[in-house]
Amino acid sequence: MADPRFFDRQGPFALRDILASVDVENPSGGSADRQFQDVAPLATAGPTDVSFLDNPKYLEAFKATRAGACFVDPAHAEHCPEETVPLATATPYLAFARTAGIFYPTESILTVDADGPTVHPTAEVADGCAIAPGASIGPGAEIGEGSVIGPNVAIGRGVVIGKHCTIHHAATITHAIVGDRVEIGAGGRIGQCGFGFAPDPPGYVAVPQLGRVMIGNDVNIGANTTIDRGAGPDTVIGDHCRLDNLVQIAHNVVLGKGCVLAAQVGISGSTKVGDYVVMAGQVGLAGHLKVASGITLAGKSGVTHDLLEPGTYGGFPAVPVRDWRIKVATLSRMAKKRNRNDG
Amino acid sequence: MADPRFFDRQGPFALRDILASVDVENPSGGSADRQFQDVAPLATAGPTDVSFLDNPKYLEAFKATRAGACFVDPAHAEHCPEETVPLATATPYLAFARTAGIFYPTESILTVDADGPTVHPTAEVADGCAIAPGASIGPGAEIGEGSVIGPNVAIGRGVVIGKHCTIHHAATITHAIVGDRVEIGAGGRIGQCGFGFAPDPPGYVAVPQLGRVMIGNDVNIGANTTIDRGAGPDTVIGDHCRLDNLVQIAHNVVLGKGCVLAAQVGISGSTKVGDYVVMAGQVGLAGHLKVASGITLAGKSGVTHDLLEPGTYGGFPAVPVRDWRIKVATLSRMAKKRNRNDG
Amino acid sequence: MADPRFFDRQGPFALRDILASVDVENPSGGSADRQFQDVAPLATAGPTDVSFLDNPKYLEAFKATRAGACFVDPAHAEHCPEETVPLATATPYLAFARTAGIFYPTESILTVDADGPTVHPTAEVADGCAIAPGASIGPGAEIGEGSVIGPNVAIGRGVVIGKHCTIHHAATITHAIVGDRVEIGAGGRIGQCGFGFAPDPPGYVAVPQLGRVMIGNDVNIGANTTIDRGAGPDTVIGDHCRLDNLVQIAHNVVLGKGCVLAAQVGISGSTKVGDYVVMAGQVGLAGHLKVASGITLAGKSGVTHDLLEPGTYGGFPAVPVRDWRIKVATLSRMAKKRNRNDG
Repeated sequence: MADPRFFDRQGPFALRDILASVDVENPSGGSADRQFQDVAPLATAGPTDVSFLDNPKYLEAFKATRAGACFVDPAHAEHCPEETVPLATATPYLAFARTAGIFYPTESILTVDADGPTVHPTAEVADGCAIAPGASIGPGAEIGEGSVIGPNVAIGRGVVIGKHCTIHHAATITHAIVGDRVEIGAGGRIGQCGFGFAPDPPGYVAVPQLGRVMIGNDVNIGANTTIDRGAGPDTVIGDHCRLDNLVQIAHNVVLGKGCVLAAQVGISGSTKVGDYVVMAGQVGLAGHLKVASGITLAGKSGVTHDLLEPGTYGGFPAVPVRDWRIKVATLSRMAKKRNRNDG
Repeated sequence: MADPRFFDRQGPFALRDILASVDVENPSGGSADRQFQDVAPLATAGPTDVSFLDNPKYLEAFKATRAGACFVDPAHAEHCPEETVPLATATPYLAFARTAGIFYPTESILTVDADGPTVHPTAEVADGCAIAPGASIGPGAEIGEGSVIGPNVAIGRGVVIGKHCTIHHAATITHAIVGDRVEIGAGGRIGQCGFGFAPDPPGYVAVPQLGRVMIGNDVNIGANTTIDRGAGPDTVIGDHCRLDNLVQIAHNVVLGKGCVLAAQVGISGSTKVGDYVVMAGQVGLAGHLKVASGITLAGKSGVTHDLLEPGTYGGFPAVPVRDWRIKVATLSRMAKKRNRNDG
Repeated sequence: MADPRFFDRQGPFALRDILASVDVENPSGGSADRQFQDVAPLATAGPTDVSFLDNPKYLEAFKATRAGACFVDPAHAEHCPEETVPLATATPYLAFARTAGIFYPTESILTVDADGPTVHPTAEVADGCAIAPGASIGPGAEIGEGSVIGPNVAIGRGVVIGKHCTIHHAATITHAIVGDRVEIGAGGRIGQCGFGFAPDPPGYVAVPQLGRVMIGNDVNIGANTTIDRGAGPDTVIGDHCRLDNLVQIAHNVVLGKGCVLAAQVGISGSTKVGDYVVMAGQVGLAGHLKVASGITLAGKSGVTHDLLEPGTYGGFPAVPVRDWRIKVATLSRMAKKRNRNDG
């Protein structure tokens, strides 16, 4: 279930009521009266959770799920475990998005009451902290010893900031657990809503983003960098990572220890990066990839496949940097030849 | 004319006074006494407007203009309509930039008086809104029912925010008309000045950006994303669009309905995008292009020409994605061959 | 030495105490008692400064240095000038980083006291300025005549803003000297800490960034753009430069006069750019390069080598744009041929 420090769950709800709201037909039998308490992915769902199967890649997880009910395309419904109520729909992800929205309606973005003090009375600010003018600290947030919160910063409800951290001017931190000796640059946006939605002609339905951002110790994050919270799993930034300015980290990304990301790098959702990976400026990684520990990515390279062998990669699509140099040289030579022939 | 909610026009001015300020010679005849009220593009200008011809591509529009006066290179002055006073200059765009600056001197960026309340008395905030601490709302702005304005947000003069919108921490919204159920991420910058200027050795003269940002209903915009206001026409974001973090939308860009732009996409000025176009991360589009409805652009692709046929495009310069894959494979094969021969 | 308007130097310190803190062995002889007052690069260091040799490229500067003491790999220690105390260590940059941290412990990020007024009593605000609500102005800062400071802006200690400048909503300016008639866009981050650190398993040690950002007259900087302060030398933006939104300028970069950088351009550390250079959107430049005056870089190009000849360059790696077009055409032709042969 989603961390209650950040998310208020509603319910329980009868399956009948859920299905009425999300426009899916009630299943046969008496299960429409069954009470449900939460939403969850296939692998972690239990008997009082609603889950979904959208990508057929997760068919095995569907067969093994312990979810109480599951949205599923009719074509796959036959594989539904006996204890799970199959909820047949042509758009399982959309139905799940709407169901999650019933359990977790969008929370307020106000860190504090409009008329109250800017540090909420339930926030815990340790000794030796400094809170600059215009900063707001939400209910239940905890600021560790010796940390400094810059002017006009917003620290959301339930956020934990460790000891001796520095949060620079106008940064936003919500839905995040931050370690010790962490620095967040001015205008950094940590824990904002991930880019998750289900198509619903003529538009899209937001999928509630129920995860967090977990930031280790001794992490340094640059100005105007954005790190979205996880969709359900967390987004993770390992100890000792250093991220430069204007970097984008999408939901569910995991960075191992000691990674170095130069400015304007972008990592798409759910990509997992090992330890001590170095990315030069403007590198881009597609989603759902793995990048092994110790890899270096040359500037502006674009990673479209898993990179599992240590080494330096470059180009777009990224290949071992030696291969990329040969490609560049090969094309140059051929272009010159062509130019001579045309000349 | 520019929307008076956002721009204060000065004048009228005698042509003589305008020309003295912009360093262009008075035309012969009595027209120097004529009064002018505004600036406008060739196509929409009327008898009391000053216009300009810079790009010869617009020569036909010049021949047909109803503008009262028009800056024009001496080489094209012969095509000037009889009712229009030709204002001959070697730098018509620069002269126009300066003239526009006379009618529209730079407005203040203060949303409210330094000593007044942070919500201006002439702003209209509907029932059920929440305004967080540190937010400022400028004169004449309107906030629709049930909208939430986060901490330290600035809503500029005359801005209209629809119903049930959420504006996150520290976002900036000026010169914009925003629909219902719109979400703007933390640090989003909507309606700032477009990147428009005329060369004027040793530097540049800003061209007043007199358009707006028009945002439809059910639009979702990510953290630290920037959407500049139009130069004269508007910048338009259609209903149901979803923009991720750190996206750049330049002046006069038009996005149709339901477009999805992943993080770090950049669209250059005046490019028009159809409906339901999908752009993966770090895509870039040059200016003044057309991209047809339903097109998908693969990550990191760079669009340098109009894309009018539906399909998926990739690479730089962007081509149909199948062609791009063949190019990549072709180059790989040739590089390997070369490497073997060299080895 | 670092500008005392921005940095508080500690010390002097005995060499013995410095070395104990940075985990380097004391040199033989009586020099351990010697007092040191500052850190400095090889070229500018004097007898009371500690310096370092890390990159063998600077061996000649080492041989000629006037530094009082110098961290150096044992392999190069024999080249140490007679008046300089060699401080042998396998990790000279790390030792220097730590030493600099002793002289310049991290300064506070609070522009003003948490309980004091938002304009510090020692700040000098000239006549005709407007300071919007929520803006904070630090000790010793100077705001020139007629400048406008937007809502929630933070102006750091010692910053100088010239006359008739406009600083938009929520921008951050620290460690910077800004000329006249400069405009900084909403959310711009000027003078933040550069991306400098020395490896120190299992993480990194920050190298104090002791330089400034020097911005000339008539400069225009877009929304959410980041310009880091120098590491020791300054980051410099010449007169009349125009930077669009979401641009990244790393530490020690120098832009000449009248450069135009479109959105999402990124320039890596220590690269020097001449006058009137134009960069289209999403261009990237590697570090430590030179780009000559008058050069134009096409959109999305990636510069990996010095560009010393005037002209227009494009592609990645960037080459003269004509050559890039030939490369693109060559590859297209070969891919078509291959496709036919395969078809």
